[in-house]
Amino acid sequence: MAAPPPTCPRRLLPLSLGLFQGALLLFFAIFVTYDEPSARAEDANLVANQLYGIFPLFQDIQVMLVVGLGLLLTFLPLYGLSAIAHNFLLLNFSTQWALVLQGLLHHFHHGQVHLDLHNLLTAEFAAVTVLISVGAVLGRTSPCQLLVVATCEVPIYLASEWAIVTRLGVLDVGGTITIHVFSCYFGLGVSKALFGAARQPVHPKETPTPRSDLLSLVGTLILWVFWPSFVAVLCQPGDAQHRAILNTLLAMSASAVTTVVASSLLERDGKLSPGHLQNGSLAGGVAIGAVADMAVPPVAALALGSLSAVACVLGFRFLTPLLARKLALQDQCGIHNLHGLPGILGAAASAVAILVASEDTSGSRFSQVSPVGGNASEAVGGRWGDRGAGRQALCQAAGLAVAIGGSLLAGLLAGAALRLPCLARPPEQLCFDDSLYFNIQDQAESPGPGSTAEEEALALKERV
Amino acid sequence: MAAPPPTCPRRLLPLSLGLFQGALLLFFAIFVTYDEPSARAEDANLVANQLYGIFPLFQDIQVMLVVGLGLLLTFLPLYGLSAIAHNFLLLNFSTQWALVLQGLLHHFHHGQVHLDLHNLLTAEFAAVTVLISVGAVLGRTSPCQLLVVATCEVPIYLASEWAIVTRLGVLDVGGTITIHVFSCYFGLGVSKALFGAARQPVHPKETPTPRSDLLSLVGTLILWVFWPSFVAVLCQPGDAQHRAILNTLLAMSASAVTTVVASSLLERDGKLSPGHLQNGSLAGGVAIGAVADMAVPPVAALALGSLSAVACVLGFRFLTPLLARKLALQDQCGIHNLHGLPGILGAAASAVAILVASEDTSGSRFSQVSPVGGNASEAVGGRWGDRGAGRQALCQAAGLAVAIGGSLLAGLLAGAALRLPCLARPPEQLCFDDSLYFNIQDQAESPGPGSTAEEEALALKERV
Amino acid sequence: MAAPPPTCPRRLLPLSLGLFQGALLLFFAIFVTYDEPSARAEDANLVANQLYGIFPLFQDIQVMLVVGLGLLLTFLPLYGLSAIAHNFLLLNFSTQWALVLQGLLHHFHHGQVHLDLHNLLTAEFAAVTVLISVGAVLGRTSPCQLLVVATCEVPIYLASEWAIVTRLGVLDVGGTITIHVFSCYFGLGVSKALFGAARQPVHPKETPTPRSDLLSLVGTLILWVFWPSFVAVLCQPGDAQHRAILNTLLAMSASAVTTVVASSLLERDGKLSPGHLQNGSLAGGVAIGAVADMAVPPVAALALGSLSAVACVLGFRFLTPLLARKLALQDQCGIHNLHGLPGILGAAASAVAILVASEDTSGSRFSQVSPVGGNASEAVGGRWGDRGAGRQALCQAAGLAVAIGGSLLAGLLAGAALRLPCLARPPEQLCFDDSLYFNIQDQAESPGPGSTAEEEALALKERV
Repeated sequence: MAAPPPTCPRRLLPLSLGLFQGALLLFFAIFVTYDEPSARAEDANLVANQLYGIFPLFQDIQVMLVVGLGLLLTFLPLYGLSAIAHNFLLLNFSTQWALVLQGLLHHFHHGQVHLDLHNLLTAEFAAVTVLISVGAVLGRTSPCQLLVVATCEVPIYLASEWAIVTRLGVLDVGGTITIHVFSCYFGLGVSKALFGAARQPVHPKETPTPRSDLLSLVGTLILWVFWPSFVAVLCQPGDAQHRAILNTLLAMSASAVTTVVASSLLERDGKLSPGHLQNGSLAGGVAIGAVADMAVPPVAALALGSLSAVACVLGFRFLTPLLARKLALQDQCGIHNLHGLPGILGAAASAVAILVASEDTSGSRFSQVSPVGGNASEAVGGRWGDRGAGRQALCQAAGLAVAIGGSLLAGLLAGAALRLPCLARPPEQLCFDDSLYFNIQDQAESPGPGSTAEEEALALKERV
Repeated sequence: MAAPPPTCPRRLLPLSLGLFQGALLLFFAIFVTYDEPSARAEDANLVANQLYGIFPLFQDIQVMLVVGLGLLLTFLPLYGLSAIAHNFLLLNFSTQWALVLQGLLHHFHHGQVHLDLHNLLTAEFAAVTVLISVGAVLGRTSPCQLLVVATCEVPIYLASEWAIVTRLGVLDVGGTITIHVFSCYFGLGVSKALFGAARQPVHPKETPTPRSDLLSLVGTLILWVFWPSFVAVLCQPGDAQHRAILNTLLAMSASAVTTVVASSLLERDGKLSPGHLQNGSLAGGVAIGAVADMAVPPVAALALGSLSAVACVLGFRFLTPLLARKLALQDQCGIHNLHGLPGILGAAASAVAILVASEDTSGSRFSQVSPVGGNASEAVGGRWGDRGAGRQALCQAAGLAVAIGGSLLAGLLAGAALRLPCLARPPEQLCFDDSLYFNIQDQAESPGPGSTAEEEALALKERV
Repeated sequence: MAAPPPTCPRRLLPLSLGLFQGALLLFFAIFVTYDEPSARAEDANLVANQLYGIFPLFQDIQVMLVVGLGLLLTFLPLYGLSAIAHNFLLLNFSTQWALVLQGLLHHFHHGQVHLDLHNLLTAEFAAVTVLISVGAVLGRTSPCQLLVVATCEVPIYLASEWAIVTRLGVLDVGGTITIHVFSCYFGLGVSKALFGAARQPVHPKETPTPRSDLLSLVGTLILWVFWPSFVAVLCQPGDAQHRAILNTLLAMSASAVTTVVASSLLERDGKLSPGHLQNGSLAGGVAIGAVADMAVPPVAALALGSLSAVACVLGFRFLTPLLARKLALQDQCGIHNLHGLPGILGAAASAVAILVASEDTSGSRFSQVSPVGGNASEAVGGRWGDRGAGRQALCQAAGLAVAIGGSLLAGLLAGAALRLPCLARPPEQLCFDDSLYFNIQDQAESPGPGSTAEEEALALKERV
């Protein structure tokens, strides 16, 4: 059993990761503390209450990213271990890296960085962008390359989020623009720069099997269930949060049903495509993020969910093959269909919702709950204050443009870095195969006298 | 690779589903809004607190229905994708349909329908009945037929729930009678009317494998863990809810252990049957629903859990084969054993608990916590007020009779509708097979030069 | 298809379990009630709030033990059903047994045992020790033997926990010493006494396959996500609980990344071992328990997480083979690497943290949040009061010694009991095989005319 050729110099991954862990320890030792304990009992109660408010949602999001997204990526039948493990590693690395950068960037002028659950949450949101982006190059990249993507993407996300939310004042509570659109085009940029003009041939190991599709669908369902927590976690508690949860539930429900309609109409014999179901059901959650806490009527959430599911399924059926053919653009997981198209729809919807809400302040049913996005205390002036609805709608569009343009450019640069000789890609015949990254069926460790024909049959059967 | 004959006219499913989505949008556009935002800060806090109370339980229930029940249904080795996807589609369709009907029926006189998390929850409970009922005909019905079942069952459930809870005043916080018994006999009625007097032959693809049994058992465990949330979500917060949670935990724990005892005694060689474990462990949760918030002593919850597990296992071992032989009654998932028998036991237990509690008001340990089901504010008169315990116990029995009779009748009618020519059943040789509903192993999309012998071996192996 | 020889007298398992259930019912009938309902509305609110605080964490822990740990144990490819079902049975049996013992031991002097969610939680913690311990003998023991282990271990755990926490005053909010170290050495003792001096040969069925490794890794991820709930559930609400959650999150994140570093450095070709990833990622959670709520700086949590992951991976690579060679010590799941070594590290860390905190009270950054483990109300005197930090650190060491020594001794005795003739071990060729405990592929129940070649091929394929 000859060892397959390593993709990177053998020790590059552990050495660079180890170095990073050392630097992280140093940074934490010097700069980071917890908040001081509450001096008074009432404060302690407040801390407890805040904790009970945010912690269950935080856990939901962890389940989504670690278990749900991990399982969703196991649709490649021989690459399940790698997909789920790389996702897990990237989440942890990127979160730690985001904590360091956040500490340096945002909190440095306070002298000390005070860590709390909210910091961790925003760092995890930065990590989400990495997890989405690498979907475009899943199975054809080594862990070293993925770490380089993470290293590049996290700071660029933080800058982009600052520009879009803080500078432009874009409303985007669920990350439709700042997370989904950004990470989609970053990932496509990486893919384009990495693979260049050469179309990747269809690989014999990249076709899902019913079994791998089943596990992947379970991942989808986990993401589907917990998506409202992802959208609502950063909302103002109270009405806005309640509305964000309801809007997300409605959008996801419409997506699920509409995906079946669209897939069944497009596929031959009226059958369903597992891939459509795995992705289309989630499209509504991507799109609803930018308007979730706005006071849109429920029908808008349903319509947006349906529309984004249609866009997602059409994307898989026509756009992805087209991009592959015309631009040689490789998008393994179809992130453009799940995050790009629905994200753009959601951004457009947010601009429309703002314009409609401002025209609608004189007596209709809808005005009862305007201004858009206001919780009670903000109800007087609207969240965009004296800026005017037209200008706020323009800002939403500008934010979308910044997210697309910036991420595409940065992704192209990051993808070029992945072509460095020391980061050699896995050889084509070993792509989509766990045996390149895992010691599985290690005969060396289980030889013994029991190595019967039965064992060999088992090994063979399970291996394939 | 010739296309298998479609079971329904090819476009019936997407067209009818699409039509429904359009009607849903229209209905929401005209009638449905969210609650107005809270005018004052205290109200906003109240909204936030209510949300934190109900939302985690709501999420638990979503996990149960989407992930837990979906996985439980994957015990058919070649039908996992279809089982989990149809379950997901039916949940969404039925919830939307229940929202429409609830809106028309209950809220119409207010002019506007105000949507909140509580509405969504009760609509989801209506959908649960559909998910349970179709278990009787799993694998031998097309998605079109399942949608017809849902279309019929949701309005009948709403009527039945109104008759049982609102008119008869039956106490049933966990849905033992209104949900489990109702949906069981509805499903059996559908099965009887659909298959008629012809015994279904044993199908080569309906025998579970160890692997499909394992995934199915994981589904059971997810349901088992979150069942207390299902039972307690609609309880009065405070003592009653605490008691409902504890009673459910005790009943489920007793069920789990007793199932092992009963299965091991009944199977040959003292082995366990995976099917018994998958279902019997949950029987206690079904049975406890009607008494969960009553002030029964803990031992009653344990006893009820044990008893219902015994009933469930005995049902699988003796009753289901008997019904199949004598009545040609097809019950694919054994819903009569998991929902019917334990549900009847639970209903009987609720009547007994009410009678015992009323006799027991003068000094025993038990009376400390009577009257049954009272939280503090109701402790004076009992929940059945001046009706008298005997009459309340009679009502419980009447409610059970209404649930069984009504659902059986309605199920027979719905099942007859499934025999309409346009809803042709899947042909026998394609039952229990994902390839009828999913484009899997689509060679057309992955031809390429890489279609090697290795790929074909893989495809063959994974397909079987 | 001849029936394999049963491992115990055929009816021993159901009869003994059934007897226990009967005794449990009797005990509950005589001794156990619920708390009386709150007399006043404010109390009811308080109950509701406490419930909302503890119940979500309780559910998280249930998911960990039932689903997460169950899946983690499915790494044996042909033993998944048994592993997950035995884990489930043991959890329920041990919790019930702990409830009985707790009732007898702790609450007896009150005349009545008042059951609430907190009792259930501590009983479940006792059950956790059993679930960990039996990992050492997974696959080579019958359910009867596992029940004997549980019967012995629960009372000894309760005594040990009383000695360590109540008598010695050891600080160990996350159970590092009382649960993890204790159960590890108990399990090793059982293994040693059961298997004696004979080295167990490598069994052809004990090598994981990529598929079983994948499901097992999903189990790890579920445990990883919910671990903070396990550590923090018994903390003082407020600052201490917040700190416990953050420390656990940091330690687990460092563990995940460091495990990749260590495994990749130690394995050939820089690949990863699935087993390392499945266990090492969790090592930080084991180690952090004893210091989680102490006011250690964040860097300490990171460092402890990294260190324990290194210890875990080194243990798998070198110590387990060494112990098997020199001491013929069988440790199937590697519990010594996941629970023993990180547990000892965590205990040492707690002693160091106490000493450092006491030296550090005059001005450094760290002193702002000292004293160790104090929430606001305890901040004046420290949790060890006038005992002095040195003495408290000694107590931590003494607690560790008690946990190791007591459990090893008790485990050896319990393991000796497992060699009783009536508890015959499964025959070697049927170890690690579900078919010994489950009626799978039961041809007797699905004969019919449909028993085609296709079915036989399926049966064969799935069986292997």
